[in-house]
Amino acid sequence: MIVQKYKDMLQGKSVIRQLSEFAAARGQEIGYENVFDFSLGNPSVPVPQEFTDVMIRMLQEKNPMELHGYSQSLGIPSVRDKVAASLNRRFGMNYTGNHIFMTTGAAGAIAHAVRCVAEPGDEVLTFAPYFPEYAPYINLTGAVLKVVPADTENFQINFEAFEEMLTEKVAAVLINTPNNPSGMAYSTETVKELARIMEEKQKQYGHDIFLISDEPYREIVFAGVDAPYPSAFYDNSLSCYSFSKSLSLPGERIGYVAVNPKCTDAEIISVMCSQISRGTGHNCPPSIIQLAVAEVLDLTSDLTVYETNMNILYRELTDLGFECVRPGGTFYMFPKSPEPDAAAFAEKAKKYDLILVPSDSFGVKGYFRIAYCIDTEKVERSLEAFRKLMKENY
Amino acid sequence: MIVQKYKDMLQGKSVIRQLSEFAAARGQEIGYENVFDFSLGNPSVPVPQEFTDVMIRMLQEKNPMELHGYSQSLGIPSVRDKVAASLNRRFGMNYTGNHIFMTTGAAGAIAHAVRCVAEPGDEVLTFAPYFPEYAPYINLTGAVLKVVPADTENFQINFEAFEEMLTEKVAAVLINTPNNPSGMAYSTETVKELARIMEEKQKQYGHDIFLISDEPYREIVFAGVDAPYPSAFYDNSLSCYSFSKSLSLPGERIGYVAVNPKCTDAEIISVMCSQISRGTGHNCPPSIIQLAVAEVLDLTSDLTVYETNMNILYRELTDLGFECVRPGGTFYMFPKSPEPDAAAFAEKAKKYDLILVPSDSFGVKGYFRIAYCIDTEKVERSLEAFRKLMKENY
Repeated sequence: MIVQKYKDMLQGKSVIRQLSEFAAARGQEIGYENVFDFSLGNPSVPVPQEFTDVMIRMLQEKNPMELHGYSQSLGIPSVRDKVAASLNRRFGMNYTGNHIFMTTGAAGAIAHAVRCVAEPGDEVLTFAPYFPEYAPYINLTGAVLKVVPADTENFQINFEAFEEMLTEKVAAVLINTPNNPSGMAYSTETVKELARIMEEKQKQYGHDIFLISDEPYREIVFAGVDAPYPSAFYDNSLSCYSFSKSLSLPGERIGYVAVNPKCTDAEIISVMCSQISRGTGHNCPPSIIQLAVAEVLDLTSDLTVYETNMNILYRELTDLGFECVRPGGTFYMFPKSPEPDAAAFAEKAKKYDLILVPSDSFGVKGYFRIAYCIDTEKVERSLEAFRKLMKENY
Repeated sequence: MIVQKYKDMLQGKSVIRQLSEFAAARGQEIGYENVFDFSLGNPSVPVPQEFTDVMIRMLQEKNPMELHGYSQSLGIPSVRDKVAASLNRRFGMNYTGNHIFMTTGAAGAIAHAVRCVAEPGDEVLTFAPYFPEYAPYINLTGAVLKVVPADTENFQINFEAFEEMLTEKVAAVLINTPNNPSGMAYSTETVKELARIMEEKQKQYGHDIFLISDEPYREIVFAGVDAPYPSAFYDNSLSCYSFSKSLSLPGERIGYVAVNPKCTDAEIISVMCSQISRGTGHNCPPSIIQLAVAEVLDLTSDLTVYETNMNILYRELTDLGFECVRPGGTFYMFPKSPEPDAAAFAEKAKKYDLILVPSDSFGVKGYFRIAYCIDTEKVERSLEAFRKLMKENY
């Protein structure tokens, strides 16, 4: 029989996808260049030329059996070593290749990290606002996602609510900094306090509580912003990374889990991930992509456009009276809706060909997300639409 | 806390891997060219040049944001359409792109197909001898793998044992034809009888029983061998494919699930797979690899070496007195061990630098697997070692 659980999931339709489909349909009518589509978090700048060059060079020069051969399910050893060295160089860590498990993107990383540390029925906490896919990502492992209410003041952490929810049932805490959708990075102060509370509770309960840090936006941090590497502050940390945003490679599904060397059982967690992968069907990310990213680990796409866009939008929207915490990174911002019903606001915005995502599916009411990973020229043209939207409705 | 289930799995060490490591170590001593390493099923012929050319052309000419962009979690629509068209052309099926779910290889395909049709606790039957990874692949989904004893006469199906084990608890039957390790392909007669029994039991029990057909060796079939496409004979079929062997791309992790259009809920199974993938962290295979294989769907590597090697080994081994069913495809053969304890035989073989895999981990006692995906020149040099092994020991 067809499994009902997954059949039932077909009913739910993502708000973001619906909006993106609306934008595409509207584009058919008036030209997509005239639709201010801020719905999707797709990188808008190309991969570094060095990546393309190294791919071509390998295809031209390498023995194809070696190039396309099986990699170990943990990832190619030389690639894991290079990832470890790069993280050590940049964040003062002490990883070896043994602490790195190569994955098909951050989704793959989270799927394996959670299964390592959470039994079915265990709770995993995350913080609103949060990436809506966390719910199926976590719940389909058998663990249970619980959402700590937002700190809507600064989109840091609502520590009072966190401490209350950090019960003995919690196996892991899932953070996302810089954050989708708020655009905020946790400050050093925030990360330190998070670590302090988790350490205290570990002692109190007598069991590990793991920090699973989802970091696809790690490299998109704006000038002067304090955005520390969380694992440096908490031993039981599993960092989940994806090159999707930093190298503009979202379709190539490449990332990793980096296990803090001071973590409980640090030496075996990556090997456990490779056992888990036998059940998830993951096995390993494609060899050629592993080898290519290993050659450009310290490069990124030209990410400056995101900060340029943020500055333009932040200035204009605050001028128009929007309340908004200034993003510290990513390519998102998360202003307060001018009316309490964010969905009603987003519906009105559509009339001005402004495609904005209401905040409800991110676990907060009354905000909206702007994904400004689009050309600056289009961002500038969108300002008039924002002005009209506000003038004619609020 | 670290999850004990996966921690416990670290104890088990694959016999194949141990043998392959032994071969590598021995190679350090006497030169790897002198080790007759028949342990691993790694393709020994290069990918078709057309694949390499199309990869390079895309990297040089395509807009990188499009090339490396997110694909839908079902796979790239044009790729799914092409896969469907190719299967229809070759096997007289009526797939559309909607019946195809692109995966990271056959392991990914099985992980999703099983979750579609088997609830935790349901049984999945497979037939000895079988690929040892099926046990973790199936059991880690929550379903329970049960192994039907082998038909050691012909390595077709032991139908008597099958009928007995095909109880109401069985949600799916997993076949692998042509088969690793036996090298045998199921004949039309075998597939028809399998389908007949499964249809009868479906009626009797009043519920679907799915056929999950794992087909990584589909394109490696030897001259004159009857090796039908199983899904053409049974409506409730999910075919799991990998390009690893046919295109010699095992590291690139690309394959698919093809859902028989006459299957129960055929139109939604691929979409269900994309829901399942949210929990497995699978999401989708890399865009560039999807696009590249779609351009070479009807090509294969030059696979003739495998048949050449099989003929040489089959002639010599039967001459030496080995009992062996002549393989119909793959790059494996599965002769009877000259002594009942296959592990003891394989241990003796190591003294002649012959690395052979005893059959125990494939679910049968008293056989051994030869993976002859190596150069023909080396196969020929190995014959003397086989002769000595037999002369001096049996």
